[in-house]
Amino acid sequence: MKYQSFFPENVKEALKNNPPGAWMPVLPKECIRLSSGFPAPDLVPAQQMRAAAASLVEEEQDLPFHYVGSPRAALLQQQIKQRLRKRGIDTGEGELLITSGACQGIDLIARALLDKEAAVAVESPTYMEALEIFKNYTKQIMDIPIDENGLNTEKLAAMLAERQAAGLVLPRFVYTIPTFHNPTGTTMPLKRRKHLLELSMQYDFLIVEDDAYGELAFSEPVLSCKALDQNQRVLYVGSLSKVVAPGMRIGWIAGAEALISAFAWFKKDLDHPFSQATMSVYLENNPLEERIQMLKNRYQVRWETMQHALEQFLPAPISWHMPQGGYFVWVHMPKLDTAILLEQALAMGVSYIPGKYFFLHQEKGTEFLRLSFSYAEEQDMVEGVRRLGELLAPYYR
Amino acid sequence: MKYQSFFPENVKEALKNNPPGAWMPVLPKECIRLSSGFPAPDLVPAQQMRAAAASLVEEEQDLPFHYVGSPRAALLQQQIKQRLRKRGIDTGEGELLITSGACQGIDLIARALLDKEAAVAVESPTYMEALEIFKNYTKQIMDIPIDENGLNTEKLAAMLAERQAAGLVLPRFVYTIPTFHNPTGTTMPLKRRKHLLELSMQYDFLIVEDDAYGELAFSEPVLSCKALDQNQRVLYVGSLSKVVAPGMRIGWIAGAEALISAFAWFKKDLDHPFSQATMSVYLENNPLEERIQMLKNRYQVRWETMQHALEQFLPAPISWHMPQGGYFVWVHMPKLDTAILLEQALAMGVSYIPGKYFFLHQEKGTEFLRLSFSYAEEQDMVEGVRRLGELLAPYYR
Repeated sequence: MKYQSFFPENVKEALKNNPPGAWMPVLPKECIRLSSGFPAPDLVPAQQMRAAAASLVEEEQDLPFHYVGSPRAALLQQQIKQRLRKRGIDTGEGELLITSGACQGIDLIARALLDKEAAVAVESPTYMEALEIFKNYTKQIMDIPIDENGLNTEKLAAMLAERQAAGLVLPRFVYTIPTFHNPTGTTMPLKRRKHLLELSMQYDFLIVEDDAYGELAFSEPVLSCKALDQNQRVLYVGSLSKVVAPGMRIGWIAGAEALISAFAWFKKDLDHPFSQATMSVYLENNPLEERIQMLKNRYQVRWETMQHALEQFLPAPISWHMPQGGYFVWVHMPKLDTAILLEQALAMGVSYIPGKYFFLHQEKGTEFLRLSFSYAEEQDMVEGVRRLGELLAPYYR
Repeated sequence: MKYQSFFPENVKEALKNNPPGAWMPVLPKECIRLSSGFPAPDLVPAQQMRAAAASLVEEEQDLPFHYVGSPRAALLQQQIKQRLRKRGIDTGEGELLITSGACQGIDLIARALLDKEAAVAVESPTYMEALEIFKNYTKQIMDIPIDENGLNTEKLAAMLAERQAAGLVLPRFVYTIPTFHNPTGTTMPLKRRKHLLELSMQYDFLIVEDDAYGELAFSEPVLSCKALDQNQRVLYVGSLSKVVAPGMRIGWIAGAEALISAFAWFKKDLDHPFSQATMSVYLENNPLEERIQMLKNRYQVRWETMQHALEQFLPAPISWHMPQGGYFVWVHMPKLDTAILLEQALAMGVSYIPGKYFFLHQEKGTEFLRLSFSYAEEQDMVEGVRRLGELLAPYYR
């Protein structure tokens, strides 16, 4: 290709091993989207955000439209810190960086901590965007199995001991989604979280805790790894995408000042004063606590609808994991290849994400798929699952 | 430092050679900011943007608040392409990437094209943020002198010939701001632009053309390098920060599809649907052509005010370069160190940017400073220059 000579070797390799391009087919227009990890359209506060933007301009005039200088944009930091404090996470001066969503946060962490000599450990399966990001920096990725209690820390410990004994490089960090995991919906119990923190001290690695879904708990949530962290081992990645609106692109990293300042240095999109300031006004006028309570109630109803539909329409021996919060149900379809089936599902007007995309070694994921109960309307969700059942029934007769 | 062991060598080196942290002192509250490369407060369309945000929500409801799916956000691409077409730049499918301002564009280019084996050439002086970005990726930076006609392409040619003869690595790209250069305000004539394009073919390098100020021409502007480019050698970096509002963070890269798709792959902040869609509505309701005409008129008046003030208040042998557009005047103060003088200037209530920050080899810049005529109100601008004159007079008696 004409421009190949302009790319450094590591970039050539990243583009080759991890080729750009959409991996999901374009969805038909009338498709019931059980694939979408988006908030439901009617749960996005469009009118309140519009009011926030209007009141911001009333209050600050031109300030949010300059590079810097909007008091509101500066205030957003404090509002997020306050929210984190309520969840047991104290962040001091220089310990919080606002990012353009969790995704930019994960990329900044990888940018500053990984190169091809470095290793990283991920859950298997894991959030596909994170996997793609890590592949841009290194080929040394270890995947640790998830079970119904999230990351299996015993298996992680065994892997670490084995690598240490063999003189192999240890992971610089473990990337985990301990609460309402994407895609499996699993949650790590307290004991495993503490074990993970102990391992991080014993084997000297950092923990990148992705907590995008952590606030959407149907019952009392487990403490985040960050809240349990006595040794500044955890880099906590959060976001308002799931609880307010993804299109505002507000996420963050909380962690040790020396690490945060490195991430900040590599973040060359500067800040987004208009979005950030609008969000700040929104948060002041619409208490997040109440909103999250409302979301939990609404998503729990959807969760129940999804569960009933799965029980009603999916034939044995298909099984699934219902989470205690978050957005996702992880479904196991023995002996089927969910990536191959997708085409038929789309033809029937229902979408899901084939499990293989969440695995470092995609062959591990062929019998799985991810369903989301966050996005589609309830009656559509039921109809979507019914269609899936219709598609699958002949395979299990 | 506690976390040093977690950083790869190249990151450690970048943080050491190019330390994070503000290089400008905090400005006193009442300071006349001749340092700020911002649009004037009253030239930022705050009310129109507020109206655009309101009408966007009216029109699209929740769509701009999701990750994707806002027709308006998609439309922004077309609006920018149309604007580029008017300036002689045709971009086909896949040849334009929206970025969070020009800065993210420059960083993405560096991310995909530079590593420590690669070299890059910059103007001397150049935009300080770009210099910082390149230093994050490589130490092999060559600086080519600017004269009153911008980048001296004869000197670039000599450097290239010399390096080729010596078997040294040639630059992967030349970063240039050919029109209303930051900080010098100079503009490369057509002949030099053509020479630069010829050199890019002869020595096989790319040209990164930063055109942030190009539309703000007081008279007929020179064609951009990109418009003259027959061989897809130019990566054109543009932005709405100087002509609409920096706080919206809308910039772009236009160039060959194979390069643009690599940049897109590394852009992990995803898109910013709310900002982009709001900007799209703004552009539809407020024709950019008319706005730019208005800005040119307004900035030209400010330019004249600045020129008169400089003539009136700055003692000989101080000299300066008045640009034909853009934001900046470059001032030469023989035998003074402008970085040392800054403290006194701030005490007198006027700020500028010391020249040294724009140079790879900072010692070349001690006698220079950058003044901006874009931001301060006209009477303040005059007063600011008067204070500078008062500060400087004793040194030239």
